[in-house]
Amino acid sequence: MAASVTPPRGMRDFLPAEKARREHALGVIRRVYRSHGFDEIETPVMEDASRLHAGLGGDNEKLAFAVMRRGLTSDDLASAAASGDALSLADLGLRYDLTVPLARFYATHQAALPPVFRAIQIAPVWRAERPQKGRYRQFVQCDIDIIGESGALAELELLTATVAALDELGLAGCVIRINDRRILAGILASWGVAEELRERALITIDKLDKIGPDGVAAELRELGIVDGGSDVAAELRALAAADWHLDDRQSSPTGASAPPPTWLDLGAYRDLLALREALPGAAIEFDPTLVRGMGYYTGTIFEIAHPDFGYSLGGGGRYDHMVGRFLGREVPACGFSIGFERIVDLLGEAEGERPRALVLVHDADVPHGALLALKAELVASGARVRLERRVKNLRALLDRVTADGFDAFATVTAATTDASSLAFRELGA
Amino acid sequence: MAASVTPPRGMRDFLPAEKARREHALGVIRRVYRSHGFDEIETPVMEDASRLHAGLGGDNEKLAFAVMRRGLTSDDLASAAASGDALSLADLGLRYDLTVPLARFYATHQAALPPVFRAIQIAPVWRAERPQKGRYRQFVQCDIDIIGESGALAELELLTATVAALDELGLAGCVIRINDRRILAGILASWGVAEELRERALITIDKLDKIGPDGVAAELRELGIVDGGSDVAAELRALAAADWHLDDRQSSPTGASAPPPTWLDLGAYRDLLALREALPGAAIEFDPTLVRGMGYYTGTIFEIAHPDFGYSLGGGGRYDHMVGRFLGREVPACGFSIGFERIVDLLGEAEGERPRALVLVHDADVPHGALLALKAELVASGARVRLERRVKNLRALLDRVTADGFDAFATVTAATTDASSLAFRELGA
Repeated sequence: MAASVTPPRGMRDFLPAEKARREHALGVIRRVYRSHGFDEIETPVMEDASRLHAGLGGDNEKLAFAVMRRGLTSDDLASAAASGDALSLADLGLRYDLTVPLARFYATHQAALPPVFRAIQIAPVWRAERPQKGRYRQFVQCDIDIIGESGALAELELLTATVAALDELGLAGCVIRINDRRILAGILASWGVAEELRERALITIDKLDKIGPDGVAAELRELGIVDGGSDVAAELRALAAADWHLDDRQSSPTGASAPPPTWLDLGAYRDLLALREALPGAAIEFDPTLVRGMGYYTGTIFEIAHPDFGYSLGGGGRYDHMVGRFLGREVPACGFSIGFERIVDLLGEAEGERPRALVLVHDADVPHGALLALKAELVASGARVRLERRVKNLRALLDRVTADGFDAFATVTAATTDASSLAFRELGA
Repeated sequence: MAASVTPPRGMRDFLPAEKARREHALGVIRRVYRSHGFDEIETPVMEDASRLHAGLGGDNEKLAFAVMRRGLTSDDLASAAASGDALSLADLGLRYDLTVPLARFYATHQAALPPVFRAIQIAPVWRAERPQKGRYRQFVQCDIDIIGESGALAELELLTATVAALDELGLAGCVIRINDRRILAGILASWGVAEELRERALITIDKLDKIGPDGVAAELRELGIVDGGSDVAAELRALAAADWHLDDRQSSPTGASAPPPTWLDLGAYRDLLALREALPGAAIEFDPTLVRGMGYYTGTIFEIAHPDFGYSLGGGGRYDHMVGRFLGREVPACGFSIGFERIVDLLGEAEGERPRALVLVHDADVPHGALLALKAELVASGARVRLERRVKNLRALLDRVTADGFDAFATVTAATTDASSLAFRELGA
């Protein structure tokens, strides 16, 4: 029995049908992103450990798989044992996201790249998380990033390209939730949160969907971020209950007649209005409580969801202080990441034009040369062709190839002379 | 300066033009292999260390990158230091080939796979080799394997699919060198090499192209595999000088009138004749000194070369004792691997139909909404579109986008109303 032979914990094999579905979806995403002017790049799956642990990866740094140095000596092992520092034995690690490698890539190659660089990265990343339903230790990320553009055109091109890709995948009707880290900063300031605690406060607010306003308020109090006097839960409930507008005819997010809330960063709000105005066809909602986990965001943040599904299909934002880190100067950047593993589960069978898939069921005595010539003739006509030796239980064979996605079969005997003499019968009809 | 920021040693970044070339070539290979009835699968990049070091990987096992266990304690480190066994700290490793993962995959999923399973694997592998020209620590392998077919149809389908893929890539005219491990065994027996030394002898003979007949003879003597009396160098020279025939009208590889050499395994030779006969259009050459490195081959071995290039573009063979190893039973298997990194260097620019690539050079005062609408209109018409803000040195901008592969540009001003009012001028004409 093969029961004990499995892929490594938390990692998956993909059998033909699933692999075909994934490659089809990735092909659609690639094609749409390219048509929108983005260019695909690739970096090695490993990066130097020092880059992966430079503080750009947030909590993910702890989840990096570490790759051991080659040729470790007993002395190396003894000194790691003495210091208790296992990571001193690793010089490389598997990337946990595509953003740190992008920052490294940009530092390496910026001289060869256009001033505004629109990058596509479609590639696996690895995180040593506790495996659970829908969480894997190897999974694919689909990122687009625009580097070198500080204006809103970056956000706009990212959003239009992403919505177009989701449309092409059959996920039309997505809603974009949008916010700005500066607006969140205003809310925290209105609660009296000290500036140095804001980053930590956002991690808690990011859990709003999971633990609710009371949970967030309790955690902020426990952490000493807000004092017992402030009624953060009520404030969060009010933020959630408000009927936010993002509408170029209005000067306030709570309606034309109402004054803007005192905490509202008006510069950031006007930027959001401008985005809204430039994308008249898109479903955009302002959500002042939207955080998006990563600490590196500096401005606009957005998340895309489909009304049929209770979770985000991707998100991104502006992160101006990060891509330039390895270069030693600030480089404006804005990115969007599609949650590929979630999306691929929502898609049906790969559609669109695919070649006709034919099975040749042959007797054992058909000369190989004749069989290959038949196959070559059908392949040349544009078909996909599989050979199957005839077996006693033909029904079982036909059921199997039907399940494998083949469309028709014909029987080949030693008397078959050419492809035109084959009588194809449709499968699964 | 960014001079010190590089990808890890021996690994490469791919910039847009190179990445596009690679993806194009992989797409061609995928499509041809699929049309020939093969199905793509995917396995995780890591496998359990015990599988990678089960003796199936030959010398490559030593080159595996080891992935450290998570949560190592000081005790773990101390005990590794005491034993001097660094690998005891690793539970996973990066795959060094696609054959060991295939054997593991087959053991895991055979119940869900057809009795004759034709697998495509197109994926990176990693080897901690000393980096040198043309050798990388991360590189892509393109493997096809047929599992469960013990007859020559496996070899034939592999060879026809591979030749078709190379043809489609513009590498028509390849020559297939072919041999059989049983024929090599016969040669070694005729030299008096003991059976248990044959595997080691083949490693030396595999260097024939590099070190010549005298080098091989010297190394075999040094290793004590042949004694001083045998003139292995002369025998090798005679094998190389002979005018081998592989022709169904002949009963001997040295011509119809000559008797077959006494060392020739006639069963294996007849199998090669049958392959030759079934592929009348292919350029097949019999080479009794062809070894193909890996120790696991059991029968036919082949290598493909193009007359314009002095090195092999890929190779493979039958390896009946390996795929079933994790299952505990013998499973016939035959595979072919394209040397993708070599091939991609031989290809010119990606050809074929690609979308028209347009640049919109826009003034800063063009409203974003209007600009995006123009872009959307052109994308919807099937074009690939890049926005570029107008700069003083327009010539430099146009040179850059020409180098990036764009075909034409138009200038967008605040007065531009729709795509039909754009005047496109061809680039690089």
